[in-house]
Amino acid sequence: MNEFIQQLHSHRSIRKFSDKEISQSDLELILSAAASASSSGNMQSFSVVVTRDRAMKERMYQAHFEQSMLMDAPIFLTFCADFYRMRRWLTLSEAANNFDNYMSFMIASIDAILASQNAALAAESLGMGLCYMGTTLASAGEIGEILELPENVVPVVGFALGHPDEAPDLRKRLPLESLIHYEKYHKYSDEEVLEIYREREVEGMKRYRDNPRLHQMIKDVGAKNLAQVYTQAKYTEESHLKYSEDLIAYLKRQNFF
Amino acid sequence: MNEFIQQLHSHRSIRKFSDKEISQSDLELILSAAASASSSGNMQSFSVVVTRDRAMKERMYQAHFEQSMLMDAPIFLTFCADFYRMRRWLTLSEAANNFDNYMSFMIASIDAILASQNAALAAESLGMGLCYMGTTLASAGEIGEILELPENVVPVVGFALGHPDEAPDLRKRLPLESLIHYEKYHKYSDEEVLEIYREREVEGMKRYRDNPRLHQMIKDVGAKNLAQVYTQAKYTEESHLKYSEDLIAYLKRQNFF
Repeated sequence: MNEFIQQLHSHRSIRKFSDKEISQSDLELILSAAASASSSGNMQSFSVVVTRDRAMKERMYQAHFEQSMLMDAPIFLTFCADFYRMRRWLTLSEAANNFDNYMSFMIASIDAILASQNAALAAESLGMGLCYMGTTLASAGEIGEILELPENVVPVVGFALGHPDEAPDLRKRLPLESLIHYEKYHKYSDEEVLEIYREREVEGMKRYRDNPRLHQMIKDVGAKNLAQVYTQAKYTEESHLKYSEDLIAYLKRQNFF
Repeated sequence: MNEFIQQLHSHRSIRKFSDKEISQSDLELILSAAASASSSGNMQSFSVVVTRDRAMKERMYQAHFEQSMLMDAPIFLTFCADFYRMRRWLTLSEAANNFDNYMSFMIASIDAILASQNAALAAESLGMGLCYMGTTLASAGEIGEILELPENVVPVVGFALGHPDEAPDLRKRLPLESLIHYEKYHKYSDEEVLEIYREREVEGMKRYRDNPRLHQMIKDVGAKNLAQVYTQAKYTEESHLKYSEDLIAYLKRQNFF
């Protein structure tokens, strides 16, 4: 394993940040690494919105379900699928219309997510830490209002970025062989499924029981195992159906559907 | 700029590969780097399907619009959004239902795309090269049939992987400042839009004119500038509307919509 790959393996989400600021030159270094990622047709159909202003962070904090790392970090980066810029150029160049449909949203989302991962890794190589926040997509419409995104721009992923003020352990992944399929998808037997999640079940429940707030949450929903914690407390069907509806409605409003 | 970031900046798509094979240990090193990427709720809601078999590559080649790099490369990796594994575990654990909706597809897609970028960068750090192929999404349904993907599994990104047999120049990106917005989205003036794409226009048209096949394509569609090449030849509205319909129909078939 070379040093580069060791660095990839050292990733952990950071949720507590020191007061140390991020210089403009470091920020630009991180974002230029983002721009060097692969991009469909070399179109760079993404934009990054930098949130540093205190008042803006407070509005973003509300939209991100009041998760503390957003206020704690000096910077929040929102990576957006963006065909607005390209479509403005098409219009000025008297070119035919396109990129206002669902496939274009997905193409631009892939551009934005690849760019975000380059930025995340560049930041980590500079000793910084970050935490991706899935609320970027769950609150895409509200965030879009705050950041004043025009049509054909949609927030897809975002992370709080700063210098770490904690050193959490690496989180274990599912066994690697369970994530890989050769030639055709291997449909796991019941025994294989339980084996894949066996260690996760033990560690996950321990992790929840060791945290008073999470332990109370387990008791409140009456979860008997980790799978039940996932779907009865963390990720309920009701919440996901609402996020799905909200996101599709926002894609329509943003001229992507 | 440290060595890690220099490596990020050295990315170029590779479309011609030498005969050198990729060892199983290198493949596993690349895929373990993929698994160390951020993942929503640490769920690893993605799978990777490895295509190496000649007969399978021929079927994938058809689905990928007969692009030669797929046959030329020793390996093709398909990164799939995958909630099938997790949902099997939920059922066996008598947990409530979830992750069969559009938000879950997006969460799993983000997991898959972050993992793919880690894999791509790990491979490049080992001296390999790759080319992301957008046809993974355009032909998702057909690829899903070939790889025998079960419900709640959808191909999102994929790349041909091997040892480079070409050393193309770096492709220029749009000016970095045009991709970044501070606090609120900056709605470019017409002059700014034309300035952002000015260099791209000159280089892009030169690139097309220097290639006999592409030059003929420009003439065939009567494109007067690069923007017209993009939407009259490379990415037509008709093709993208069809891909959009196909993808949404496939998401429905795969129990995500």
